[in-house]
Amino acid sequence: MSNNSNNSRRKFIQQSAIAGAGLVLANPIALFSQTDNTKTMSTIKSKGYAGKDEEGKLTLWNFERRAIGDNDILIDIKFSGICHSDIHTIKGHWGKQQYPQVPGHEIAGIVTAVGKNVTKFKLGDKAGVGCMVNSCMQCDSCKNGEEHHCETTGMTGTYGSPEKSSPTGITQGGYSNNIVVTEHFAIKIPKNMDLKFAAPLLCAGITTYSPLMKVKMKKADKIGVVGIGGLGHMAVKLAVSKGAEVYAFTTSPSKVNDIKGFGAKEVIVVRSGEDLKPWKGKLDFMISTVPYAYEMSAYIDCIKPYGFFTQVGQPINGELTINNFNMIFNRVNFNASLIGGIPETQEVMDYCAEHKIYPQIEIIKAEEINDAWKKVVNKDARYRYVIDAATI
Amino acid sequence: MSNNSNNSRRKFIQQSAIAGAGLVLANPIALFSQTDNTKTMSTIKSKGYAGKDEEGKLTLWNFERRAIGDNDILIDIKFSGICHSDIHTIKGHWGKQQYPQVPGHEIAGIVTAVGKNVTKFKLGDKAGVGCMVNSCMQCDSCKNGEEHHCETTGMTGTYGSPEKSSPTGITQGGYSNNIVVTEHFAIKIPKNMDLKFAAPLLCAGITTYSPLMKVKMKKADKIGVVGIGGLGHMAVKLAVSKGAEVYAFTTSPSKVNDIKGFGAKEVIVVRSGEDLKPWKGKLDFMISTVPYAYEMSAYIDCIKPYGFFTQVGQPINGELTINNFNMIFNRVNFNASLIGGIPETQEVMDYCAEHKIYPQIEIIKAEEINDAWKKVVNKDARYRYVIDAATI
Repeated sequence: MSNNSNNSRRKFIQQSAIAGAGLVLANPIALFSQTDNTKTMSTIKSKGYAGKDEEGKLTLWNFERRAIGDNDILIDIKFSGICHSDIHTIKGHWGKQQYPQVPGHEIAGIVTAVGKNVTKFKLGDKAGVGCMVNSCMQCDSCKNGEEHHCETTGMTGTYGSPEKSSPTGITQGGYSNNIVVTEHFAIKIPKNMDLKFAAPLLCAGITTYSPLMKVKMKKADKIGVVGIGGLGHMAVKLAVSKGAEVYAFTTSPSKVNDIKGFGAKEVIVVRSGEDLKPWKGKLDFMISTVPYAYEMSAYIDCIKPYGFFTQVGQPINGELTINNFNMIFNRVNFNASLIGGIPETQEVMDYCAEHKIYPQIEIIKAEEINDAWKKVVNKDARYRYVIDAATI
Repeated sequence: MSNNSNNSRRKFIQQSAIAGAGLVLANPIALFSQTDNTKTMSTIKSKGYAGKDEEGKLTLWNFERRAIGDNDILIDIKFSGICHSDIHTIKGHWGKQQYPQVPGHEIAGIVTAVGKNVTKFKLGDKAGVGCMVNSCMQCDSCKNGEEHHCETTGMTGTYGSPEKSSPTGITQGGYSNNIVVTEHFAIKIPKNMDLKFAAPLLCAGITTYSPLMKVKMKKADKIGVVGIGGLGHMAVKLAVSKGAEVYAFTTSPSKVNDIKGFGAKEVIVVRSGEDLKPWKGKLDFMISTVPYAYEMSAYIDCIKPYGFFTQVGQPINGELTINNFNMIFNRVNFNASLIGGIPETQEVMDYCAEHKIYPQIEIIKAEEINDAWKKVVNKDARYRYVIDAATI
């Protein structure tokens, strides 16, 4: 790279200059202070809402991101969705964390700087970041667009993952005003897609889309969705858009009308296992977004023999109880799904833009994040809180 | 039926007479005391080893079985296998039981009487009974040879299932000297198959054969077997016989040489999850026969992405813990399997007879049953205890 040092720097400045008004660097000085060695370029000043301990109260925090490398883009974040995973992670439900940590992996904004090797984005483009920001890019999984299943280093999560290049030692997420990310891990957001709707697609959208595609869902299939929150309501909308008959299972009677509005054929309010009995063996596939341990076997029983049940909600410590008596008789295949690879995340973004499938969101100010978290836990979200990053 | 009463009785007696020396009724009087109405025919005197309460100590018990109906056969039991399920059931691990109850669902013997409609068996034939003795025979599952998944009444288990026709109110199993069973639920045992080897095929054999067939196991597939006891050792032998590369996982170092003798390519002694790590993502399919709750997720991790793991061992109360963190990354499908239908049970019996696949057994006397149960629980069985019914 040293051979191209002058060129690369010139190219970077040119690209920045071309962007004109589109260039809104958080720290404009960074652009001009960088050298050709990405490791010594200036870091990017950021501010975001960070958890400081397992209590999980988020407060404003000024921190630094890595300098923009040759393959990186800088995104000026406009909107950032709140996912239940953020809460689980910061509260240590899934393992010990390093603090301060800024959560958020549903990030949508505008590209305000690009490294010299960047080809996928130009300044001013709409761009998004989902649940991961790096992987080895060498293994079969990475080469096959399943970067989240990277076989060597594992994927680097958007927040809380150890990352040498990060001044804080870990990745910092989207409840912030900007993010530096390798272009490969950024998603192109079509011009006609509103950024505030794009954000939740980057986790809630892809996480439900991927298993629905994997099961080769087809028209008139009877698809069950368990837990109608941020992920579940996207599962309903996506399955409906593909022509499936969607059966939504919720514990919140107050959500029934909304869910019917999303296109569900039937909404089942589940007070106990008894409410599930009429559905025994009726559905082709079920996806569950429930992020806590629950009476899973009674739901699995609703699937036809040899069908599939996919758990995408992640309970505390990951532990779920499965009753093998149910399983020997229902003959259902249980599996779980993480998120989706970058190509598939791009696919769901494009699909939703083309078919005008938008999450049902509520825009909040940064100062409302802690309240919003409580509402998410209490099932009061309708259906995705999205932070207006201008208020950070 | 009353129109044919004289004929049917005559036919029955003729069939009995033809059998000559083969006719060894437990209670010869029963044959001649019966009338043409099956409901009023004399019951069959039996003796067996029964549990009296959840303590699970078996003692000799004299009881009666239903009279031989038009579609029934009477089997003079020669051998009866001991399955871990017998222990779980009698000890109430899987739910409350009615006592006295004679366990045993690996039954092999000689046909000593047949009802007038019986066509599948004649006196003197070798016959076996596995885990079920009835079902509705009308529903799609029953018609398709999946009687164990009967959709109306559910299957009637060989012991402990409510049964109106039984003088004791429940079915009574094979730790006894005879059994009356509808011919459909009896398995033909080929002449060249030794009855003592046939018995364990009726549960241990079919329970492992069925999922191996369902997964369309093919030559050189890498098949993992977890838990090498009565079921597991049959899984090893069956998979080896189909040309699979078999990897056997056991917690008993003393079994290693035996298991290699069964044809396993490799035997992994598992002391902790660490011993499983080298196998991560290596196997095409795994079957687990472990009949207690265990660290299942570490085993499931050994399967290639999108492969299948089938649990056939039934833990106490059926409860198993599954870690969804493992599942989102391993992408394995977990399912469970009960036993197999009657046609498939016949298939495995014929297959084992043809290919000379025999369980590794130890013949015991009836008075040794209680000791044998202790050894089964303590993993000291090598590998299936089979009761010599002549000692009852």
